[in-house]
Amino acid sequence: MSELASPPQPYGSSIPLPKALSCEVLLAWRMNGEPLPELHGGPVRVVVPGFIGARSVKWITTITVQIAPSDNYFQSTAYRLLPADADPETAAPGAGLSLSSIALNSDILVPDDGAVIPAGPLTIRGYAFAGDDRGVARVDVSLDDGVTWRQACLQPQRGPWAWRLWSLGVEVPPGELRITARAWDSTGALQPESAAALWNPKGYANNSWARVTVNVCG
Amino acid sequence: MSELASPPQPYGSSIPLPKALSCEVLLAWRMNGEPLPELHGGPVRVVVPGFIGARSVKWITTITVQIAPSDNYFQSTAYRLLPADADPETAAPGAGLSLSSIALNSDILVPDDGAVIPAGPLTIRGYAFAGDDRGVARVDVSLDDGVTWRQACLQPQRGPWAWRLWSLGVEVPPGELRITARAWDSTGALQPESAAALWNPKGYANNSWARVTVNVCG
Repeated sequence: MSELASPPQPYGSSIPLPKALSCEVLLAWRMNGEPLPELHGGPVRVVVPGFIGARSVKWITTITVQIAPSDNYFQSTAYRLLPADADPETAAPGAGLSLSSIALNSDILVPDDGAVIPAGPLTIRGYAFAGDDRGVARVDVSLDDGVTWRQACLQPQRGPWAWRLWSLGVEVPPGELRITARAWDSTGALQPESAAALWNPKGYANNSWARVTVNVCG
Repeated sequence: MSELASPPQPYGSSIPLPKALSCEVLLAWRMNGEPLPELHGGPVRVVVPGFIGARSVKWITTITVQIAPSDNYFQSTAYRLLPADADPETAAPGAGLSLSSIALNSDILVPDDGAVIPAGPLTIRGYAFAGDDRGVARVDVSLDDGVTWRQACLQPQRGPWAWRLWSLGVEVPPGELRITARAWDSTGALQPESAAALWNPKGYANNSWARVTVNVCG
C-alpha cells in the first residue's frame, strides 16, 4: 500500500501490449546466478528497457492484460507530462502524456559543473541515450554556446538499451568556459535547445542540451 | 541511369532489415484495382511508410539483402544530414546521418503565412506527424511567441502512417498576429524550437516549430 497515492493503494503501472510482448521485456527472478534480492524487486520484478524506471515494477504480484491502461494512481495520475497551464492538484486522471519510452538525452559527466581545471588539454566525457528502438547517431560539443560545434567520438554501442559513451579532446585557455553537448538520434532528431520550452508543472522529461560551466586557471 | 549521381548510376537505396521485414513495408504493383502507373513507380515500387520518400523506391529492378547499407550514391552520399562544418562537395561517402524515419513535425495550414484576415473568431488548422512507431500526443498553439500555449483539438488518428490533423478556435484582435505551433510525441519528445539549431549544409530535416504571421484587419 503506497501512502504516496491518492487514495492510498498498491503500486500499479501499464505498458503497451506490443512492448510487453517484445523480446527485451523481462520478468526477472534471478540476478548474477542468485535469487533476485528484495532490494532489487525480488522475488520477481519487471524490467522494461528503454522505458522510464517507473514501468519496471518491483515486487510483482499481478499482471493483467486489458484493453486500456490501468486506472491505478501511478499510471493515470503520477508520471504524466502535463500541459504548462495544468494544475497537478486538480488535473483529471488520464490528463497529459503518460511517460513511457525515454526521450533522446545526453549529459556531460566530465568535467563537473563548477569545476576548476587547469588550462591545456581537456577530455570532455559524457553519455547519450536514445530510448526506444532508436540509436545515438551523433554527439556535438560546443565551447562557444552553440555557435560552432565539434563531433565527439562515440564509444561502441554496448547494446540497444545502454548509454552510449562519448568523449572529445580539446585545448582550453584560461578563463570561464561554457561547454554544451547535444545528441542526434538515428532518425535525425535533435534534443531540444531550451529547458524553458519543455517546462511542465511536474518538471518531467527535460531533455534539453547539456551545459556545464567550468573555471580554467592559467 | 541518373545524371544527378556522381558518377552517374542507377538509383539505389537501403532500409534496415527489421524495417524491410515489417508488415507496413510493401512492394506495390497495383493501385485502386489497376496496375500501378509508371508515374507512380510501376510496374513495381517499394512503399516504406514512416521513412523519407527517397526510400520508397520506384521502378524496382533488384532487391539485395546485405550486411551493410548500399554504397549507391543516393544511399551513401545523397540524403545525409551532415555536421554543420562539413562540405557536401568533399564529404566522404557514409558521412553524416542517413535520413530514414521521419522526425516529429507539424505545420500550420490555415491561415497562410502573410494572409490578411478579419478580426474575430479564427480556426487555426494544421497537421502533425510523428514518424516511426510513435504517435502525436499533443499539439500546442501560441499566439504570443511561445509565452503561453493552448492545446489544439486532435482529430482521430487515421492510421499510424497518416498525418494527424488538428485545429484550434481562437478570437483574434486587429494587428499583426504571430502564430506558433509545436507537437509532442507519445514518448514526451518535443519538436526543437529553433531552425538555427538544426542547421546543416544540405538543409535537411528542419522540424522546428511552425510559425506564421498574419495581418488581422479591424
